Amino acid sequence: MDLDASFDSGNIEVLDASDPRDIQLAIRKDHHSEFYQWFHFRLMGARGQQVRFHITNAAGAAYAKGWAGYNVVASDDGERWFRVPTTYKDGVLIWGHTPHSDVMTYAYFAPYPLVRHRGLLAHCGASSLATVDMLGRSVDGRAIERVRVGTGPVPLWVIARQHPGESMAEWWMEGFLTRLLDPSDALARGLRERATLHIVPNMNPDGSFRGHLRTNAVGTNLNRAWHEPTAEESPEVLAVRNAMDEAGCALALDVHGDEDLPYNFIAGPEGVAGVTDEVMEQLAVFKRDYAAINPDFQVEHGYEIDAPGEANLTMCTNQITHRYGTLGMTLEMPFKDTTDTPDPVHGWSPVRCRRLGADALFPLVKFLG
Amino acid sequence: MDLDASFDSGNIEVLDASDPRDIQLAIRKDHHSEFYQWFHFRLMGARGQQVRFHITNAAGAAYAKGWAGYNVVASDDGERWFRVPTTYKDGVLIWGHTPHSDVMTYAYFAPYPLVRHRGLLAHCGASSLATVDMLGRSVDGRAIERVRVGTGPVPLWVIARQHPGESMAEWWMEGFLTRLLDPSDALARGLRERATLHIVPNMNPDGSFRGHLRTNAVGTNLNRAWHEPTAEESPEVLAVRNAMDEAGCALALDVHGDEDLPYNFIAGPEGVAGVTDEVMEQLAVFKRDYAAINPDFQVEHGYEIDAPGEANLTMCTNQITHRYGTLGMTLEMPFKDTTDTPDPVHGWSPVRCRRLGADALFPLVKFLG
Amino acid sequence: MDLDASFDSGNIEVLDASDPRDIQLAIRKDHHSEFYQWFHFRLMGARGQQVRFHITNAAGAAYAKGWAGYNVVASDDGERWFRVPTTYKDGVLIWGHTPHSDVMTYAYFAPYPLVRHRGLLAHCGASSLATVDMLGRSVDGRAIERVRVGTGPVPLWVIARQHPGESMAEWWMEGFLTRLLDPSDALARGLRERATLHIVPNMNPDGSFRGHLRTNAVGTNLNRAWHEPTAEESPEVLAVRNAMDEAGCALALDVHGDEDLPYNFIAGPEGVAGVTDEVMEQLAVFKRDYAAINPDFQVEHGYEIDAPGEANLTMCTNQITHRYGTLGMTLEMPFKDTTDTPDPVHGWSPVRCRRLGADALFPLVKFLG
Amino acid sequence: MDLDASFDSGNIEVLDASDPRDIQLAIRKDHHSEFYQWFHFRLMGARGQQVRFHITNAAGAAYAKGWAGYNVVASDDGERWFRVPTTYKDGVLIWGHTPHSDVMTYAYFAPYPLVRHRGLLAHCGASSLATVDMLGRSVDGRAIERVRVGTGPVPLWVIARQHPGESMAEWWMEGFLTRLLDPSDALARGLRERATLHIVPNMNPDGSFRGHLRTNAVGTNLNRAWHEPTAEESPEVLAVRNAMDEAGCALALDVHGDEDLPYNFIAGPEGVAGVTDEVMEQLAVFKRDYAAINPDFQVEHGYEIDAPGEANLTMCTNQITHRYGTLGMTLEMPFKDTTDTPDPVHGWSPVRCRRLGADALFPLVKFLG
Repeated sequence: MDLDASFDSGNIEVLDASDPRDIQLAIRKDHHSEFYQWFHFRLMGARGQQVRFHITNAAGAAYAKGWAGYNVVASDDGERWFRVPTTYKDGVLIWGHTPHSDVMTYAYFAPYPLVRHRGLLAHCGASSLATVDMLGRSVDGRAIERVRVGTGPVPLWVIARQHPGESMAEWWMEGFLTRLLDPSDALARGLRERATLHIVPNMNPDGSFRGHLRTNAVGTNLNRAWHEPTAEESPEVLAVRNAMDEAGCALALDVHGDEDLPYNFIAGPEGVAGVTDEVMEQLAVFKRDYAAINPDFQVEHGYEIDAPGEANLTMCTNQITHRYGTLGMTLEMPFKDTTDTPDPVHGWSPVRCRRLGADALFPLVKFLG
Repeated sequence: MDLDASFDSGNIEVLDASDPRDIQLAIRKDHHSEFYQWFHFRLMGARGQQVRFHITNAAGAAYAKGWAGYNVVASDDGERWFRVPTTYKDGVLIWGHTPHSDVMTYAYFAPYPLVRHRGLLAHCGASSLATVDMLGRSVDGRAIERVRVGTGPVPLWVIARQHPGESMAEWWMEGFLTRLLDPSDALARGLRERATLHIVPNMNPDGSFRGHLRTNAVGTNLNRAWHEPTAEESPEVLAVRNAMDEAGCALALDVHGDEDLPYNFIAGPEGVAGVTDEVMEQLAVFKRDYAAINPDFQVEHGYEIDAPGEANLTMCTNQITHRYGTLGMTLEMPFKDTTDTPDPVHGWSPVRCRRLGADALFPLVKFLG
Repeated sequence: MDLDASFDSGNIEVLDASDPRDIQLAIRKDHHSEFYQWFHFRLMGARGQQVRFHITNAAGAAYAKGWAGYNVVASDDGERWFRVPTTYKDGVLIWGHTPHSDVMTYAYFAPYPLVRHRGLLAHCGASSLATVDMLGRSVDGRAIERVRVGTGPVPLWVIARQHPGESMAEWWMEGFLTRLLDPSDALARGLRERATLHIVPNMNPDGSFRGHLRTNAVGTNLNRAWHEPTAEESPEVLAVRNAMDEAGCALALDVHGDEDLPYNFIAGPEGVAGVTDEVMEQLAVFKRDYAAINPDFQVEHGYEIDAPGEANLTMCTNQITHRYGTLGMTLEMPFKDTTDTPDPVHGWSPVRCRRLGADALFPLVKFLG
Repeated sequence: MDLDASFDSGNIEVLDASDPRDIQLAIRKDHHSEFYQWFHFRLMGARGQQVRFHITNAAGAAYAKGWAGYNVVASDDGERWFRVPTTYKDGVLIWGHTPHSDVMTYAYFAPYPLVRHRGLLAHCGASSLATVDMLGRSVDGRAIERVRVGTGPVPLWVIARQHPGESMAEWWMEGFLTRLLDPSDALARGLRERATLHIVPNMNPDGSFRGHLRTNAVGTNLNRAWHEPTAEESPEVLAVRNAMDEAGCALALDVHGDEDLPYNFIAGPEGVAGVTDEVMEQLAVFKRDYAAINPDFQVEHGYEIDAPGEANLTMCTNQITHRYGTLGMTLEMPFKDTTDTPDPVHGWSPVRCRRLGADALFPLVKFLG
């Protein structure tokens, strides 16, 4: 029985694997950071054996209360992921499993590998409806790519995965981009005619590769760097922010996952000083339309709303509303499942992320009027 | 127009890309080594533009005479690769192209990414006909996996990609393993009944990831380390060699690519002191059967044969014949194309590698008698 | 060069094929009927040759004015269909083509073979979310199958292909059923919870097989038989109508194609005596929601509206509104293309039909409130 | 619970289906013939219910002794077929089953629908390596197509499905043609260079469609009509025989299934008067090579060999050896399974047929020398 995490977005430390029924593990911290919660590893040579995993440092994870009601995802092929019943007790995350395959992968959420990210960009590049360029490079030197779609006058920005452990954000992107570039889709066609979309599928490739939860290669939480991005600490944000300044931004959607809340919801810029009634109305309509087209999204549950003027302007979408006076929104998806529309086998899953991404075209078209 | 090689098996240095018609590039050397010849990079934002690449340090590559008659491979999706007419002149490798996609990838040969490697192992693990274990770890800590197939008494070893730039070796493995694990294939069934196969799909994951041609993470040419592998310099070989000692080895096939020769051929252990007539006969029969079943393989062209007793015992298959007294063979595939059965569009290609891998079952079954 | 229509939904008579540049063809009439317009045939042995087809009896077709602006569909595999520029002149439908394949198929619209119909039912049967039964048999003895989906109290009916030549109706069905049975789709889930859907994917298998335009095996136009269906002339309608009487019908959607109008639109029950304001309001909302979610559908163009009380009650959806007092709608799709959202390569096509079918879930969910 | 066989290659009569545990069925005879054994029907609306089928007229089937050791095939999608344990007792064929799908299909062997046949021809036509023409028409007017492949001087004929119920013959064809037209396959390339192959994938489309076991639309057993084919009774044979006369025939392989013997084997022309030693040697080598490459084929079991001069010259391959003096062979595959290499789940199956078809290239290449 062998354990391995020596690969793209892998993360685990094996403390003691001498007893298959009592495997002791720990999650590595993000580099130069105290954050951790993402894990991802392979188990080899255990087909048909009962194994039991203990993540012993779960209590110190970034959002430890998120472990309540959480179930690990597992896969035998890296494509289809199912949930394994999981317990959080006395600060330890525990699950037992009897693998049907001799190579079994476990993770916090279905990983989205960088090679798939490159494949997604290749799919975009191959479409005559899109262009692809590189806005800059990450700390480790990886490309920060932008996909541009559409010929209309309204500049829209959709970005994802500032937080690398929130891999659902890039599954969402896959659904969004695939539909947006579908030449036979009449809604996509309308969107492409009325707007120019600037899309950054992965803001944090270094963190993605390193198996981080929240930060880039030097420990920066990118979604706390939008007020003053720097070439040294947050070149990923700097590159995108500069491109936004150049292209303009009539609406921005920043796609995330939330460790705790079992809902899809949008956090808006209510707390930004000077936010206009028009923006608040746009926010309400966007949320309503999104919920109408896809009941996995809802408008009742979400974060507490910031008091007027108390928005955190280091965050992307608050900064956007502050900077451009337009609608900035953070979409949050669960690591667990949706309470109202649960799927006991898969929980919140890649296929549902993709559908939610594809369905985002509807509120965007309505936004354009 | 952006160039990027910041990914799994990427390798290029951009010297000057200011003029799309005169892009100046260099190949990075393997880490701690003078070897280089593998390259692999993306071009973004050049759809419909004529571009012209110059690899300026081609003359210093490991097998510079291999550039004659060579054509670069290109792909818009990382799956289907075609050849682009290429010239080698005055020490510079040159090709012009007008990409039809806004993201275009160029490489020395169709890359085999590590995520596909993991997928191949997952496919093996999911089959009840195979088990997967980890024989050891590479210098960088990556897993060296072994797939075991079959229940018969005869131990056979098939290994690939000691030289990481020879990616055709793992495409071959994909064809070999897929057929070997096909429950409906009667030839595979016969092989599984009579032998136990020990298969190492990738001996050098570090070099694969780093975009190396020949060496591992500390500059070791693994196929020159079989006489005395060490935990520091060649742990990949040490792990496999120890497992061979334990399991025995009635035949070994080590899969490679050759930069120069436009043929598929096998290099045998003729030069090993004390090699028996029986082994020489087995070699001749194996080669004849392989050529019969797949005319892309041939027996006329190949390396010069070592004089008796002059074999290089640092090489895997010579060492195996020396060590176990059994048949060790090195399979070489071209980077270019096969002279007798050329494919002007694709040259030697993944699909042909896979077919050659699948067809290897025939001479193996015949070897077992 | 050989011509052949001796297969499922084939229809052509070869008058003279001696000159490939002047092939003279005629469409067969529906059995026991004067209707004809559907054609579907293969050309073999003409790769790379210029051929020119003339349908000499086009002027007598059921909707001859539909030929204006119409382009023939062609395929080399029966899966992907493209348009070939076509002329209607002096009562003859003419197109020239140089096939790239040695087997080329031409048709009035992308055919939907009965074997695919059976595959669609098998897909439904395999889902735990659906049951399949047989409501009756056609004149030739083929099964008229019903798919039931959902556990809610509201009975909805969706039927297609009373007119067998309107194959777009079953492509629509494929999109509709596939999404309706998607366990991961939150909108489908909502629909399944609130309604019970009764779906008849093909009302007229005999006409489909025989290559008819409008009628069943004995020449009955099924959509003129709803006032008084009989076991002899219209058993297909009788079986479905009886099942409707039994299950109830809160809304019915009958899916069709229109030879003439280049639009997707809905014909409603405005002319039915006693139609309520509530039904008229439901109709308006349904059309508005459908257009919002899929701009290939529109509400401006369509048939002239019947004067109050002058609806033709032999037609399915008028009869339904008359009989049950609820909303009956006929969806019409073009044989040609949509004027506002044209696709010059494919025209109105299977992929767009499927999308329109999938998107029908949105107005249905809104109908349920 | 509904039973239906009103489709392409369907065959069943329902005698009494009032008790799901005791369903009484009968197989229809071939039209104008006493032969019957092929059956194929759907069961709808029985998900999760235990059902039990009885074919009451099994004793009168063409090869009743073939029922011993036979198991019915079943499928929920028409693509993947598995075996259901079956008993033959007191002249009745009996099997019980609890369908997991609400639409379940049962058959004598995995059916090969005519629409798939047309798809296979379309695949051939789309390849620049093949041409397709029509040699003639069946009694019912269906096309008898020929695929021609290769540019070499040696004319080879491969035909299948004279007996329509032997659907394995066309699964074999699919494997054979797919590989033969693979541009990347070196063995196929060699065959195409040295021979011209004339391939008739389906000799009896009428019988295939009608759900026959042995005969065409007027009750002719085509494989008893080769001495004197007629336009009225056996136009299918006449068309192919005339084309053979024109093209010549250096070797012919006629692909069949055998109801009784659980082996793949070849019946040769031993009994043909004047058969040469060269032909007998070619036969022996062909069989030996076929067995070497695919152990599902064997040379020990088969039909009793005709005494010299006593061959039945009404049969295709005997007539060919008689007529052209060259090697005629009949390949027989089992309806059941292979005794030496059994697959308890699938028995002899489409995937194994395809593999055996693909592997036929090897003995053919060896035949050419």
